[in-house]
Amino acid sequence: MTELERLREQLRDFAAARDWDQFHSPKNLAMALAVEAGELLETFQWLTEEQSRKLAPEALAAASEEVADVLLYLVRLSDQLGIDPIAAASRKLLANAEKYPADKARGNSKKYTEL
Amino acid sequence: MTELERLREQLRDFAAARDWDQFHSPKNLAMALAVEAGELLETFQWLTEEQSRKLAPEALAAASEEVADVLLYLVRLSDQLGIDPIAAASRKLLANAEKYPADKARGNSKKYTEL
Amino acid sequence: MTELERLREQLRDFAAARDWDQFHSPKNLAMALAVEAGELLETFQWLTEEQSRKLAPEALAAASEEVADVLLYLVRLSDQLGIDPIAAASRKLLANAEKYPADKARGNSKKYTEL
Amino acid sequence: MTELERLREQLRDFAAARDWDQFHSPKNLAMALAVEAGELLETFQWLTEEQSRKLAPEALAAASEEVADVLLYLVRLSDQLGIDPIAAASRKLLANAEKYPADKARGNSKKYTEL
Repeated sequence: MTELERLREQLRDFAAARDWDQFHSPKNLAMALAVEAGELLETFQWLTEEQSRKLAPEALAAASEEVADVLLYLVRLSDQLGIDPIAAASRKLLANAEKYPADKARGNSKKYTEL
Repeated sequence: MTELERLREQLRDFAAARDWDQFHSPKNLAMALAVEAGELLETFQWLTEEQSRKLAPEALAAASEEVADVLLYLVRLSDQLGIDPIAAASRKLLANAEKYPADKARGNSKKYTEL
Repeated sequence: MTELERLREQLRDFAAARDWDQFHSPKNLAMALAVEAGELLETFQWLTEEQSRKLAPEALAAASEEVADVLLYLVRLSDQLGIDPIAAASRKLLANAEKYPADKARGNSKKYTEL
Repeated sequence: MTELERLREQLRDFAAARDWDQFHSPKNLAMALAVEAGELLETFQWLTEEQSRKLAPEALAAASEEVADVLLYLVRLSDQLGIDPIAAASRKLLANAEKYPADKARGNSKKYTEL
């Protein structure tokens, strides 16, 4: 079993033991994930990019907790949708490599539609 | 190498080949992740919870793409912060099990502070 | 002076008195607004739509605070960008009326591209 | 009638003509607002703070459209909740003035709990 599959199983057991499947509709899980993404964003609020590259230990611990929350909801949502997140990410990475050829995209943050 | 470590390596190579490390500050990556979380949320906009549990194939494909984007930015952000997302998620799951004991949380969606 | 103009002036004074213009770049303000939108969303997390239509007093007070935060950052961001939010909203409303003709959109939550 | 009250009335008419009240639960409107906040954030993605202070005309027009969307959903959500957003924002501004006294907060972006 891969590491994400193990998380998926643990989250299934967690929800089953609490009878939480009723709350875990994909709509609700996508909301929960967005809430956590907002909390992760908050960690970097008012910091400069430079400061965000060298977080103080407490800020790093806070960011780490929010990363965990996002991942947990992502795995749970994927499970409820019947999606394999790793396979989806691998496909996306291939698509991105085509949209952003290295020679055109080098040192450039423009969207592929503007390259 | 685990599957997330492989994604991490691929994303490192992807960014290096395009000289994108300059744009990939944790602050910017957290922004990008929040943008994708918003796009994921949009997939479920105006749907009922029931409808979100049985998506049409096109909606499912759209959700799958956004799940992929969130995961890719999450892995990249974790790398830039020096965080192990699986270890963080496992710790969080243990903490949640303490905050939400099965007997108190059963069938209840209240926050742990209100249980 | 309209009510939003008055808020705009108060926010200018607030920032000036604290020397906060340095932090109030449009990028940072858009981040702050997204963080507050996430907190607003959290108010409705795990509620059914029906429950969200009749919030308990504490939940309503919490939602009200987050609505306030979103509005304050929206006014401040508009000021920094030189945008008139009311004029922009009025234009958008007209555009929406064209995209969603009442007879085609009645009782239908589909996106205009799918009507 | 103030300008936000006029928007509120226009949005009521808009929804009534399309029989959209059924979709406009506070939960759904908060989701819609978060989606638009994400699109607003996207306008600034990969820009430096400096660049965000002097947007190109097309980027400014895009930001302006998203500001409009956020405001429209904010007014509609407030109406469905029975909240007066201007009154809520004024109260919040007073509370913030107490939490962030000018002499302590000057030139400092720390959260009030850390001042």
